[in-house]
Amino acid sequence: MTDTAHTRFLFAPGDLRGAEAIDDSALISAIGQVETAWIVAQGRVGLVSSETRAEVAAAIDATVRSLTDDHSQLESLGEAAESGGNPVIPFLGLARERLSAEASRCLHRGLTSQDVIDTAIGLLVSRVVRQMQARLEVIGASLVELSESHTQTLCLARTLTQPALPTTFGLKAANWAAEVNEVQAQAPYVDYVQVGGAAGTRAAIRWFAGDSTDSLLREFHMQMVGPDAALTQIPVPWHTDRVRIMSWGTHLTQCVTVGASIARDVLVGVRPEIGELSLAATGGSSAMPHKSNPTSAVLLHRNGMRVPGALSTLTTAAAEAVEERSDGAWHAEWPALSELMTLAVSSLIMLDEMIAGLTVRPDAMRANLDAAGPGIFGEKLNIVFGDRLSKDQLAAITAPGTDPVAALREAVGDEDGIAEFFTPESYLGEAEDIRRTILATIDSSGPQEIDLPPVD
Amino acid sequence: MTDTAHTRFLFAPGDLRGAEAIDDSALISAIGQVETAWIVAQGRVGLVSSETRAEVAAAIDATVRSLTDDHSQLESLGEAAESGGNPVIPFLGLARERLSAEASRCLHRGLTSQDVIDTAIGLLVSRVVRQMQARLEVIGASLVELSESHTQTLCLARTLTQPALPTTFGLKAANWAAEVNEVQAQAPYVDYVQVGGAAGTRAAIRWFAGDSTDSLLREFHMQMVGPDAALTQIPVPWHTDRVRIMSWGTHLTQCVTVGASIARDVLVGVRPEIGELSLAATGGSSAMPHKSNPTSAVLLHRNGMRVPGALSTLTTAAAEAVEERSDGAWHAEWPALSELMTLAVSSLIMLDEMIAGLTVRPDAMRANLDAAGPGIFGEKLNIVFGDRLSKDQLAAITAPGTDPVAALREAVGDEDGIAEFFTPESYLGEAEDIRRTILATIDSSGPQEIDLPPVD
Amino acid sequence: MTDTAHTRFLFAPGDLRGAEAIDDSALISAIGQVETAWIVAQGRVGLVSSETRAEVAAAIDATVRSLTDDHSQLESLGEAAESGGNPVIPFLGLARERLSAEASRCLHRGLTSQDVIDTAIGLLVSRVVRQMQARLEVIGASLVELSESHTQTLCLARTLTQPALPTTFGLKAANWAAEVNEVQAQAPYVDYVQVGGAAGTRAAIRWFAGDSTDSLLREFHMQMVGPDAALTQIPVPWHTDRVRIMSWGTHLTQCVTVGASIARDVLVGVRPEIGELSLAATGGSSAMPHKSNPTSAVLLHRNGMRVPGALSTLTTAAAEAVEERSDGAWHAEWPALSELMTLAVSSLIMLDEMIAGLTVRPDAMRANLDAAGPGIFGEKLNIVFGDRLSKDQLAAITAPGTDPVAALREAVGDEDGIAEFFTPESYLGEAEDIRRTILATIDSSGPQEIDLPPVD
Amino acid sequence: MTDTAHTRFLFAPGDLRGAEAIDDSALISAIGQVETAWIVAQGRVGLVSSETRAEVAAAIDATVRSLTDDHSQLESLGEAAESGGNPVIPFLGLARERLSAEASRCLHRGLTSQDVIDTAIGLLVSRVVRQMQARLEVIGASLVELSESHTQTLCLARTLTQPALPTTFGLKAANWAAEVNEVQAQAPYVDYVQVGGAAGTRAAIRWFAGDSTDSLLREFHMQMVGPDAALTQIPVPWHTDRVRIMSWGTHLTQCVTVGASIARDVLVGVRPEIGELSLAATGGSSAMPHKSNPTSAVLLHRNGMRVPGALSTLTTAAAEAVEERSDGAWHAEWPALSELMTLAVSSLIMLDEMIAGLTVRPDAMRANLDAAGPGIFGEKLNIVFGDRLSKDQLAAITAPGTDPVAALREAVGDEDGIAEFFTPESYLGEAEDIRRTILATIDSSGPQEIDLPPVD
Repeated sequence: MTDTAHTRFLFAPGDLRGAEAIDDSALISAIGQVETAWIVAQGRVGLVSSETRAEVAAAIDATVRSLTDDHSQLESLGEAAESGGNPVIPFLGLARERLSAEASRCLHRGLTSQDVIDTAIGLLVSRVVRQMQARLEVIGASLVELSESHTQTLCLARTLTQPALPTTFGLKAANWAAEVNEVQAQAPYVDYVQVGGAAGTRAAIRWFAGDSTDSLLREFHMQMVGPDAALTQIPVPWHTDRVRIMSWGTHLTQCVTVGASIARDVLVGVRPEIGELSLAATGGSSAMPHKSNPTSAVLLHRNGMRVPGALSTLTTAAAEAVEERSDGAWHAEWPALSELMTLAVSSLIMLDEMIAGLTVRPDAMRANLDAAGPGIFGEKLNIVFGDRLSKDQLAAITAPGTDPVAALREAVGDEDGIAEFFTPESYLGEAEDIRRTILATIDSSGPQEIDLPPVD
Repeated sequence: MTDTAHTRFLFAPGDLRGAEAIDDSALISAIGQVETAWIVAQGRVGLVSSETRAEVAAAIDATVRSLTDDHSQLESLGEAAESGGNPVIPFLGLARERLSAEASRCLHRGLTSQDVIDTAIGLLVSRVVRQMQARLEVIGASLVELSESHTQTLCLARTLTQPALPTTFGLKAANWAAEVNEVQAQAPYVDYVQVGGAAGTRAAIRWFAGDSTDSLLREFHMQMVGPDAALTQIPVPWHTDRVRIMSWGTHLTQCVTVGASIARDVLVGVRPEIGELSLAATGGSSAMPHKSNPTSAVLLHRNGMRVPGALSTLTTAAAEAVEERSDGAWHAEWPALSELMTLAVSSLIMLDEMIAGLTVRPDAMRANLDAAGPGIFGEKLNIVFGDRLSKDQLAAITAPGTDPVAALREAVGDEDGIAEFFTPESYLGEAEDIRRTILATIDSSGPQEIDLPPVD
Repeated sequence: MTDTAHTRFLFAPGDLRGAEAIDDSALISAIGQVETAWIVAQGRVGLVSSETRAEVAAAIDATVRSLTDDHSQLESLGEAAESGGNPVIPFLGLARERLSAEASRCLHRGLTSQDVIDTAIGLLVSRVVRQMQARLEVIGASLVELSESHTQTLCLARTLTQPALPTTFGLKAANWAAEVNEVQAQAPYVDYVQVGGAAGTRAAIRWFAGDSTDSLLREFHMQMVGPDAALTQIPVPWHTDRVRIMSWGTHLTQCVTVGASIARDVLVGVRPEIGELSLAATGGSSAMPHKSNPTSAVLLHRNGMRVPGALSTLTTAAAEAVEERSDGAWHAEWPALSELMTLAVSSLIMLDEMIAGLTVRPDAMRANLDAAGPGIFGEKLNIVFGDRLSKDQLAAITAPGTDPVAALREAVGDEDGIAEFFTPESYLGEAEDIRRTILATIDSSGPQEIDLPPVD
Repeated sequence: MTDTAHTRFLFAPGDLRGAEAIDDSALISAIGQVETAWIVAQGRVGLVSSETRAEVAAAIDATVRSLTDDHSQLESLGEAAESGGNPVIPFLGLARERLSAEASRCLHRGLTSQDVIDTAIGLLVSRVVRQMQARLEVIGASLVELSESHTQTLCLARTLTQPALPTTFGLKAANWAAEVNEVQAQAPYVDYVQVGGAAGTRAAIRWFAGDSTDSLLREFHMQMVGPDAALTQIPVPWHTDRVRIMSWGTHLTQCVTVGASIARDVLVGVRPEIGELSLAATGGSSAMPHKSNPTSAVLLHRNGMRVPGALSTLTTAAAEAVEERSDGAWHAEWPALSELMTLAVSSLIMLDEMIAGLTVRPDAMRANLDAAGPGIFGEKLNIVFGDRLSKDQLAAITAPGTDPVAALREAVGDEDGIAEFFTPESYLGEAEDIRRTILATIDSSGPQEIDLPPVD
């Protein structure tokens, strides 16, 4: 191994998680898959001989292997990608070194770099989305289980950092599960096949494929998306219509924000003064041997800060799309999508592990709940006795240092339930109903069905 | 009128378009609508008397009128909103000044500010989305018509700013229409009703509504969303699950990016050296009487630069959501959504007008196309004669100053079609098929059906 | 007052703070000030008669008054600003209605809209920066005083949410002061005068001013910036060189981020389970009478989430600047600067008040500190006895439930200082030295001297 | 070389430029440099023996070499960095495997990971800023030369995409130079040394260094910054005061935006219909053999779209800084700074080369200028004859198809200069004066002096 691998993952611990699905090797493999699908499709509809098809497919395969086996070649390709602005051009150059003139003409025939890159990056996105669906499913199931274990675990609901009312940890966990489930349910269909030719008119394709054009496009689509993806009509090119890129980006973003927002809850709970949650396998400190840091939650929170920038780049790119190929906006999408895929994958892996290592401390929750009372029963007092007591009376009953039961009895006389009035159990409202509704919704939504790319 | 209206719309010409749908008065009206729906729902299920219901509804109405009629009162409310962090608290204070003690207790009973604000802002978003659906429909229809008028208008396809191949303006316009249609088709269902109570458990509601809780919530939902919105189940609160906010924000963003990306094309076409497009009703200059500026396109392009920031705020807000009410992230959503609604509304109004005022110049398109040849036939030459001619021969035939027909005849002999080989008509590929597919897709997708909020 | 003031400040409580310095009226007044300075400068160098000068100045004044007195006129101007893309064009139209033909020609003679808008908005920025300098000075002084009051207040330093070591609240407050002081010290010189004429060549100015051009420009500069602003050379136009805009934007941004980062500390300290800080004048809840919300900290935190988007718009605008006037990038700056000014002003006002209302609870700090030990002395143990004790021994001594003093004595024998080894006082390191260095730096940096715009 | 180097540079052609200065190897080397400086400083002030100092330094050196020579070890380190959240912890683990117990205790003694990472990343930033200063100097010089060569090259000034007035290309190039020079002049002093210890109090350092603490800190500072960096006082820690990070980020951002804004001008000029500029060494197309793409300008434009997101992450990180070490905000800075350094370096290298390969076509500029007249003399007509001719007369003289000289003569009689009235040479205003002022300013500002880090 040479020292030329200019990685930058030490700047972002966690980004290595799942990196093999979205690195340069994965991209080159995907580019190879697209070019192979194109020559196979040409073969299927009789536009190239089986010999040529085999020759081209073998050359692509050899080129991909050569690049992914030797990082210095991959880096040379990276350098060569600058002059034309994309890696497809030098990739084709390498593949053509292995081909006869006839086969060389059939490779990539009628396509443009954007067809290949859009399809290849879209294929990576599609795989990531599929992988995220599975992971969201697993995380959701963990959270459902966590919720089910804590239907009786009372704790504080907090609003704007302050104690608000009693709730259950079962409901909190269900709310996390609901968010995970919504992200899962809103996954876009990743329709990634792009065939427009040099300028979105398929002019060269039409010329060499003639009446077979439709068959060729259908075959190619099937090669890329799988046999079940029977097309009712041939999709149109989308070289400068980037609506779908925003949809992909939004979903990847949400895989990150859901992790961050759960992590922010955890970062509150693990403060020792609160002490309601703790994390397994937490990181140490280079200076303080006693410290147990909530590293996974910190890194998930960090990812939440990184993702708005990447999504804003995609937004700018969609806005600046122009003519038949954009003068920079298209190129700005690739690193942003790469970043978003990295963040989505690493966030959900870390989220899964964080939840698996989460310990809930019902005693601490109860202690914090008790310490917050009787103030947190102010709303209840108001609802129940607001028609009989003045504001001052209501406030006096829940003032710090008061015996609220005695004070309430004094104010309204002895009534049924006064002894239990200031117990959290008496004021959970619909916490359990809401929790069950969430779980029922998740159960009924089931795993999202999406068209899967062929396994590779 | 006093001088206290601290507007800032001179900083953003165009933002006044449709401002009445999303300004402070609209928000106050929406807040009033939510509180009214809640008292009406209480009345419908027998939790308040018809007198109380009428008293509360009248007080809300009077408060809203008073605020929206007198901007200085609205501004006072704005100042008062700071101490509690939201405008609902002082709004309720004003309304309660008009109420008996009994009625006062029933107003807002069991709700929290976030219930009211989320529902009210969501209602505004819902209306804007509905309005945008109609506008996207109109714009799409204009573009379809424009496309149909230019099936025979040949022009240059340009990639990375350079001439690429011949295409038709009909296809360009269809590509614009496709983008508009996709944005329209991806409009989210804006599910804006939020009822969680103080801490997402509906504790107070459950206490006063008892077994009528479900009926109350159903009635409230129907009041807010309309009679067709029969619920199969009561939706759960989403105080710190902000997945839907991102969906709303993405759609509003796309209403802006589609306008910007079409405007960027127009900004190329109206350059006099290109001269393929011109705009009616363009703006003048304070210094140069001769100038005719493409102002609408400039402002649409500007909006494309403003929108990534607003969407990134929503992304951060989703990531930083915490506990049962966020400590700032929730509050950060309101101005961001307000900005996105403003930009979506103004962009689509300006886009509609820009397209209505667009003049297409087929002669200039043809002249630019002719000036670009024979270089733009390089791909065709390669596809057709690449097996017979060397790269040098191919390059020589399309070199500047050559008679390409003569050169080609010399190279390959006289063949059928050589005289017309370098005509754009001969190399349009599937431009017309693609164009028709786009139009057929738009036609079949039809106006998006969405659940509409009650007309007000 | 009519109902036409389409404000949107209810979406952002707090934004009204200081709004009069940066609203449409302020902008119109600044535009008037620029046009007046131009006619006065022409008069000073003899290019217009004193009568014309007076006529033009009076018309500008009347136009400004008319617009700022009647919001419906201001709104009409806003609508009229759309066709030309900026408010200067219709402003001049209104002013010219009051002028003779001769005077009309002298108004705005040789300028372009961008000269006026850049100078006017820059003038507002300059005033805001000056105001922020004063406010940062006041806030810094409060924090210095707070720091001085708590040199003996011991508390926990926390890293990654967890207890780390003892420190003093005096140092914490000094660190806040340091950040405020750095922002103050890095305020940019706001060089806002722009005179380039229609296309940055001052062609018309040169024509009518001839050899007086330099004198005219010097006079105008002095009118705008004040008599002390003697120019060594006439500044060049910067129509599409927007480096300074980024500098202004970064400073305004930092006025917001410093408020947010202090607020985040406060939002931790006011959690009742931590209880180290409390805020006066905090906001209530619409549902929960007992609640005391840290609203000012919440709104400051919120502003921290709003500001990255606005700065990113300015960044895009700088990158997209093109030719002699940008096709949208220039226009995108105005609302972004307006937003950043709003956020800077409101954040520093709210920060000032938050700090003024801050109560520090030394007892709670001490209690939390004691509760965290002896774990927080792990580093000290390692430094002092790391050469004599094994890792396991070190860990055992600070394990929960141990008597650390006894355990340490058993491990190393009785030494001087062992009785006090686990007291926070013994392990403050250089906390006080660092604190004093910070205060000395602030004292020596003194109020930042900046060239002030004329008082108006 | 193994296949484990998960690079992602094929997603961003150009990012490899200068990557060796900012990759993981560079970071590890910088971390090694910091830890070495610390042990050397301890040695200099007599806190460790020369043997220990040599042992530790050798172990650090061997660890760095081992990691930078073998990418699989670097990747293992990357994986190990996740549990503690940063790469310093596992780096120390590796170094300690090579050390005696005594030496192991002295390595990193009293520091915290943040001290090392902040100093190391700051050192990289400092080197990049120094390198960018040199590069901006070179680019500025090229542009000055370009400007000097075109003092007589007349061309169109364009505003909002439309022809405005005549100017010179010499002035255009000078405006580019001015922007480059301003970015250079505003480079921040990168004050990167951070020593706070575990919680910003230097508690452990004070304990083991005692009265030598100041000397130790001074020595360390000198080791890191160089012998000229004599300190008047020891800088205070800045663990959660991130004002300087924003300053660094803004400067790196401006290195990118200046490249993007010049590239946008080039992307207009190289359109064949305009044809005023062309680029050497431009990229080809995978489909169209005739195409010559302005790839360097496209990639510079792309970088302009990538940079707002990275700066917005730094802004969020500054706002979310909390307590004595942030719970994610600190970690979010590293990849953002890494991205900004990458973009700054690659943008300025590509900008340098783009300018070196730029060909200016004075004939095309003149032709476009002539084609735009006489409309572009409307302002001049108004200035010169506005007092004698009506608006209609003025408009008629410059109407398309008119002989403007004849029409003007008819309107005002024959005057001196009428024959040359509509020549661009007669209406350049102060273009040359402004150009010379820019060049004089650049010349006088000279290369920016900054404190340089020691060469390594």
